[in-house]
Amino acid sequence: MALTFYYGAGSPYAWRVWLALEHKGIPYERKVLSFAEGDPKKPEFLALNPRGKVPAIVDGDLRLYESAAIVEYLDDAYPNYGKRLFPGSVRDRAVVRRMVCEADNYVAAAMNRLARSVLFTKPEEWNAERIAAARDELAAELARWSEAFRGDYLAGPLSAADYTLYPLIALALRCEKKQPDLALRERLPQRIGAWMQGVEILPFFPKTWPAHWK
Amino acid sequence: MALTFYYGAGSPYAWRVWLALEHKGIPYERKVLSFAEGDPKKPEFLALNPRGKVPAIVDGDLRLYESAAIVEYLDDAYPNYGKRLFPGSVRDRAVVRRMVCEADNYVAAAMNRLARSVLFTKPEEWNAERIAAARDELAAELARWSEAFRGDYLAGPLSAADYTLYPLIALALRCEKKQPDLALRERLPQRIGAWMQGVEILPFFPKTWPAHWK
Repeated sequence: MALTFYYGAGSPYAWRVWLALEHKGIPYERKVLSFAEGDPKKPEFLALNPRGKVPAIVDGDLRLYESAAIVEYLDDAYPNYGKRLFPGSVRDRAVVRRMVCEADNYVAAAMNRLARSVLFTKPEEWNAERIAAARDELAAELARWSEAFRGDYLAGPLSAADYTLYPLIALALRCEKKQPDLALRERLPQRIGAWMQGVEILPFFPKTWPAHWK
Repeated sequence: MALTFYYGAGSPYAWRVWLALEHKGIPYERKVLSFAEGDPKKPEFLALNPRGKVPAIVDGDLRLYESAAIVEYLDDAYPNYGKRLFPGSVRDRAVVRRMVCEADNYVAAAMNRLARSVLFTKPEEWNAERIAAARDELAAELARWSEAFRGDYLAGPLSAADYTLYPLIALALRCEKKQPDLALRERLPQRIGAWMQGVEILPFFPKTWPAHWK
């Protein structure tokens, strides 16, 4: 029985898991939950994740949520499928985990403030000062990342770090579609822009783009 | 050469790593940084962790920060030292990682709001409503955890999950020392109180108690 992957379009956390599944070539059945319909808060999904959030997976008798834990699980449970998400070397693996933590602790915080102030606030209530502060915080954070590359991808070879960071930045850029004055893209370090293109040319990438962003 | 552990008293993240080092019995040299003196922001420490935060470790030629990544590294790099922090089974390991993520994503957020509103606000500026809201959020979160035990400890045997959650709750209870009206302890689920005692009786626990809390 294939692994079941519970997904919601636009969630950077669910997107991370989708990219990781594709990277490894693990067979999966994807179930799309609708945020508009409140699917993640319905009893049948709460039985899988009591926090009512995507992503979640069911693999045999394992029900698992929290995207970072899922991505590690995929690498642990499917060592013979496709490429690794975490390097084999203990020290290199530690660095990838550090990057995943940093993306979740710092980039996500900045991205969330930006998304809250743009996507989850009515345009007539937008606060230009708050939006600019969130944008500047994110731009400063990305400037830090642009100095931290260990190769073409964040940790050298493609890894869980790339699949964690990319969706967070993509969601931040989505704010610019809604508020063109945001001017975030022009503040992206060149190294970050080139790296994003390096993710976007992966053969499986296009199908993972959120359906309602097209 | 022993591993060097950079610590700051009162940081729940540094405390987690200290407990993990002791759990495994890994030899280490502990360097205490002073927040009052601004040690984490001084150039010599920024060279180890550009974010200027404890904990960090140096182990041979590896410099590592982000507490969750450090704890995983200790288990990976010292498989023959004492007990494991993550179970050997892939599925059990996934559950411990999920718990670590949940503690960092949800408990830490609630604890930070409480600490900001009590410890990092002057008593004359305390906002009773904001403090009570943060306390209630944390209590609700801990009620959820009290239902999630898989044995005497969070995941069954002692694991990284226990060492991640304990310091976060201890720091929240520290707020009650400063503001006795907080009444957080009386809202702790009984299961959580009993589990905290189960951590506190570990032979190495007493020496890890923050020096200025005594």
